[in-house]
Amino acid sequence: MMDTGRSPVTVIGLGAMGQALAAAFLRAGHPTTVWNRTAAKAEPLVAEGAVRAETVAEAVEAASLVVVCVLDYPAVRAVLEPVAAKLSGRVLVNVTNGTAQEARSTAEWAAGLGAEYVDGGIMAIPPVIGSPEAVILYSGSREAFDKHADALATWGTSRFLGSDAGLAALHDLALLSAMYGMFAGVNNAIAMVRTEKVTAVEFTESLLMPWLNSMVAVLPMLAEEVDSGAEISHERKLVEQVALANIIETAATQGVAPDVIAPIQSIKDHA
Amino acid sequence: MMDTGRSPVTVIGLGAMGQALAAAFLRAGHPTTVWNRTAAKAEPLVAEGAVRAETVAEAVEAASLVVVCVLDYPAVRAVLEPVAAKLSGRVLVNVTNGTAQEARSTAEWAAGLGAEYVDGGIMAIPPVIGSPEAVILYSGSREAFDKHADALATWGTSRFLGSDAGLAALHDLALLSAMYGMFAGVNNAIAMVRTEKVTAVEFTESLLMPWLNSMVAVLPMLAEEVDSGAEISHERKLVEQVALANIIETAATQGVAPDVIAPIQSIKDHA
Repeated sequence: MMDTGRSPVTVIGLGAMGQALAAAFLRAGHPTTVWNRTAAKAEPLVAEGAVRAETVAEAVEAASLVVVCVLDYPAVRAVLEPVAAKLSGRVLVNVTNGTAQEARSTAEWAAGLGAEYVDGGIMAIPPVIGSPEAVILYSGSREAFDKHADALATWGTSRFLGSDAGLAALHDLALLSAMYGMFAGVNNAIAMVRTEKVTAVEFTESLLMPWLNSMVAVLPMLAEEVDSGAEISHERKLVEQVALANIIETAATQGVAPDVIAPIQSIKDHA
Repeated sequence: MMDTGRSPVTVIGLGAMGQALAAAFLRAGHPTTVWNRTAAKAEPLVAEGAVRAETVAEAVEAASLVVVCVLDYPAVRAVLEPVAAKLSGRVLVNVTNGTAQEARSTAEWAAGLGAEYVDGGIMAIPPVIGSPEAVILYSGSREAFDKHADALATWGTSRFLGSDAGLAALHDLALLSAMYGMFAGVNNAIAMVRTEKVTAVEFTESLLMPWLNSMVAVLPMLAEEVDSGAEISHERKLVEQVALANIIETAATQGVAPDVIAPIQSIKDHA
């Protein structure tokens, strides 16, 4: 590996996201050590200059910045507990998806080991990693974050949210819930128009995207209503009730599968 | 009323949307007759030059283009049945929210009266009416639509979808279902971050809007997957399962009300 003057980094976990994070480090010239339970996943990165560690211990020892990106927090602990002693004096940046509570307890666990802990939430799909459009949320040790801010900036736009380690997860999950709500609605929408032989791509590009963009643009207005505790007008409630009932009925009449309508039905039930 | 050379138009139903439609006609110089069950709603429009009809019959007789914008289709029929004979030879543009089936049967009913029928779906909130950002979907009689295309264009950008009168409602409801899904997700997201004293406006402007805009931008990719019948990868399914479980748990732990989480719970149950 060439000496680029960039700090060495380690990435543990090479799913689609872990691979994208390691690849961004490599492109920026960071000496990058990688480890994955299934070693074959490391091969494309090794071809780009990464060092594949034989063991987790070797991976942790290779850098003072240790990034972990696995499926869930139980997997984080399963991978790191056996090498816990080696984390002392290092910065652990955990970008695994987890609850706010898991992030907080992992921060305590890391502190007990003498490691500095930063929790991260990646608001981007893997192909976007490495561009400014990839927003990554962080919380936990500000000092540790600042120490590796340059390396982390190779992934995209960093947003540090505060010293409560749970804040990144809280915001990450909040944003994901907005996305899943939108996708559930989109799935229903596409299923509805496809009953009339309209393709998903045609509908999405010609009508759905402009519509959703215009609805995203009105969100500050809705947010102001929430903050001010404003009551929704009786007329708007009536209009919404009628529209939701019409959606459920038309989707059902057109033969949209019940599991696609279910989230919309649930919105109606709780409206 | 000044003679502007513009064709006379009638608007029946002056809720927030009907008022916006009539106001756009007036601004464009169309002699505009309005009627509403509660007559007081007509006052701001009369101040801008509209003629308030005393009866529905008088309203229908005032123009060859009759727009109806009421709460639902039962209300459409309740208002128009008594004056059905007077609709002969006129164009009825019904922009009331209804099911695709209601639109189709209203088209048949109108045809039986010798009226030309266009069904419309307004994809905009009232304040946006009159700007090109307001997209209005139409279906039904193409000839009738063309006859009044100039008048209808004063509302925004017209999109004629086909001669099946149900198509505008189908697309309208599909788009609304995508919006309601997004709003349900947004409500959950805002409720989650507000548990940590973050304001809805701050969260919406700094994180939620850029995030949702970037997720709208990936929709063509999802649409292509739908059209091609591609299977979602096992890894992506696992990641989604973990994230949804984490959302439900964190929302509940942070004390978000169950009725706000419900649509997200429903997405998880049917994932």
